[in-house]
Amino acid sequence: MQWDQRFAARTAQMKRSTIREILKLTSQPDVISFAGGLPAPEFFPVERVKQAADLALSERGQAALQYSTTEGMPELRELIAERLSNEHIQVDPDQVLITTGSQQALDLIGRVLIDNGDFVIAENPTYLGMIMAWKPYGLRYTPVPTDAEGMDVDALEPLLRQNPKLLYVVPNFQNPGGNTLSLERRERLVALLARYQVPLIEDNPYGELCYSGEPQPSILSLDAKNLGINTPDGHVIYAGTLSKVLAPGLRIGFLVAAAAVIDKLVQAKQSADLHTSTLDQFIAYEVARDGFLDQHVQHLREVYRERRDIMLAAMERYFPPEVTWSKPDGGLFLLVTAPSQVDTTTLLVEAVKRKVAFVPGADFHIDGSGQNTFRLNFSNAGPQMIEAGIQRLGQLLHDAVAQPVHG
Amino acid sequence: MQWDQRFAARTAQMKRSTIREILKLTSQPDVISFAGGLPAPEFFPVERVKQAADLALSERGQAALQYSTTEGMPELRELIAERLSNEHIQVDPDQVLITTGSQQALDLIGRVLIDNGDFVIAENPTYLGMIMAWKPYGLRYTPVPTDAEGMDVDALEPLLRQNPKLLYVVPNFQNPGGNTLSLERRERLVALLARYQVPLIEDNPYGELCYSGEPQPSILSLDAKNLGINTPDGHVIYAGTLSKVLAPGLRIGFLVAAAAVIDKLVQAKQSADLHTSTLDQFIAYEVARDGFLDQHVQHLREVYRERRDIMLAAMERYFPPEVTWSKPDGGLFLLVTAPSQVDTTTLLVEAVKRKVAFVPGADFHIDGSGQNTFRLNFSNAGPQMIEAGIQRLGQLLHDAVAQPVHG
Repeated sequence: MQWDQRFAARTAQMKRSTIREILKLTSQPDVISFAGGLPAPEFFPVERVKQAADLALSERGQAALQYSTTEGMPELRELIAERLSNEHIQVDPDQVLITTGSQQALDLIGRVLIDNGDFVIAENPTYLGMIMAWKPYGLRYTPVPTDAEGMDVDALEPLLRQNPKLLYVVPNFQNPGGNTLSLERRERLVALLARYQVPLIEDNPYGELCYSGEPQPSILSLDAKNLGINTPDGHVIYAGTLSKVLAPGLRIGFLVAAAAVIDKLVQAKQSADLHTSTLDQFIAYEVARDGFLDQHVQHLREVYRERRDIMLAAMERYFPPEVTWSKPDGGLFLLVTAPSQVDTTTLLVEAVKRKVAFVPGADFHIDGSGQNTFRLNFSNAGPQMIEAGIQRLGQLLHDAVAQPVHG
Repeated sequence: MQWDQRFAARTAQMKRSTIREILKLTSQPDVISFAGGLPAPEFFPVERVKQAADLALSERGQAALQYSTTEGMPELRELIAERLSNEHIQVDPDQVLITTGSQQALDLIGRVLIDNGDFVIAENPTYLGMIMAWKPYGLRYTPVPTDAEGMDVDALEPLLRQNPKLLYVVPNFQNPGGNTLSLERRERLVALLARYQVPLIEDNPYGELCYSGEPQPSILSLDAKNLGINTPDGHVIYAGTLSKVLAPGLRIGFLVAAAAVIDKLVQAKQSADLHTSTLDQFIAYEVARDGFLDQHVQHLREVYRERRDIMLAAMERYFPPEVTWSKPDGGLFLLVTAPSQVDTTTLLVEAVKRKVAFVPGADFHIDGSGQNTFRLNFSNAGPQMIEAGIQRLGQLLHDAVAQPVHG
């Protein structure tokens, strides 16, 4: 059977994720990998999850194993709604949809909103999982430049006049850039959303992992404030996840949006997988309740802050002066910029030989640039491995910078 | 914000599932519902799941909570591959993809194969979850009539000449019809697949729940036999699930297909949700291994056979002679046909008042017929409830049949 002649047109656009293919290459234990976006497994609250699973199955075993509603477990939706409510906004649990990880949250947004030929504005560089999720829906990406304070709002305004389908932003500790959108820019941004009536996707997987600086209010809440409403019925669809603050293996993400949007997202999820694992939702709720999640996040902040600081200090020591990098206030990633003659995809081949790995930056860039950049993850490897890996990378970069420029 | 003007064109085609909306209506405890497709929760192996969760988290806790591969847990893929191998076919675990329930299996097939304007041949009536999953991809359905031996293969052949994108079949204890494709028809069907080079989706959620008659070999294996290969590299994409034989709350489904197809399905799943819950896969594997799944399926066959028999006997006693129904050899459902003047959607309104529920058959039919049919589930309610519910339904049907024909 000639299967390749049977695939849908969109299937031709599907590419295997660079990140995941590289992860496979670097899974040998002697490679120090800064490539993935993996949380540190040694901090997973395994005992608490075990107790939670036992409790959920002992007290509500039949319900925990049965089909459940597409919208998600009411208690978990309530817990998430409370965490997202602040002085500007009161989130109704009915406006929370539980998703199978935040990758599904992005996929559902694509299904519900994106038509073939639409254009979407995104930070340059932007999140690869979003590019992967929305590519099949046939859109074009329009880049907005970013700096240390996030998306350049001045550069954004003329693009908003061209009727984009939506605007995609990772406002906190962006992946891959590590930058955070400043409060002043957030406020100008929500004013622009209201003026141009453009929907914004606020993708916030890392917001709680804040190690320095002031945590900023969500764009969701600032939009509500700007509109003089105190509900999520403005311009923002908010995506979050428990993957980074609890455990990614449970696949618990969520979306918060206007009621009319949630209604469509629920229908899209019904077609996609009926509902997210009932057992995982029960477990996640039991783990997160009673203030445990806050306590756990506090612990993660301490240990990840230490790893970030160790990586930044090691980079100062080992990287050549021609190389620069972002200094994130939180999250899991930072972005390194080498001199323009260094191609980081070529560099990766040599890096893997020297038993260290990163993700080349070109795929994150939607304007064809970024060949001389790469992303480093600082959450997964332990302190000594970070030190050793950065030393190896430093040597590699010294060699690359010293090489004569070809062509 | 005018969200309704922002939705993608496909969003307009999204409808809330009739089944799930009705399930909500009939969730009061005093309604006897034959509407859902729920397994009986009292037979979930809760203790075994609890032990499995404890074992998985005690021995491999960090791995069970971490990101994992899109393809799925190797040991679980191996277990499924072994269960699907028989004298005609040897399934390689690399040709098994774990999905987030079999609803996602259908969705991924739609993504990878269906272009706008394609036509798909399906049994009439057919599975509503498939209609829901593929509608957004803009296809047309072409019905093939069915009888007690399943799809009418004579009626199928002229349709295969018109270059359908694919053929969708639920070969065992079909939902909603309850019929099973005979061995003779399976053999003729695989010969037609080879002659016309048409891909077939074999959706087999119920095959193991066999209460009478001979279990039939999968179309997947018969296609391999017909082609003289002994691998799943022929015309068939096979979809299965642990939802009916273990527990639906875990959301573990799977797909088996030719290597080139699995490759594309993996890429589609990467965009859809990265991977299925790691913890649920670990738990499902621990529950299913060491022959427990076979033992458990044996038990389910006994208890569900009893419920089927009680329902069929009660229908004989309480239903008017003008009403007919299918007599399934397995699965969860049977289909009732009332005289043509009875509209079962109208009937449902009266039924809910009398505290009994079913699913009207019109939505399952892709040729606009079936208004006088409805589906009954016999797995979820216990024996006494089945008796009482069928008695209520019988009274309702007697009243409906006695009413003068309008119009």
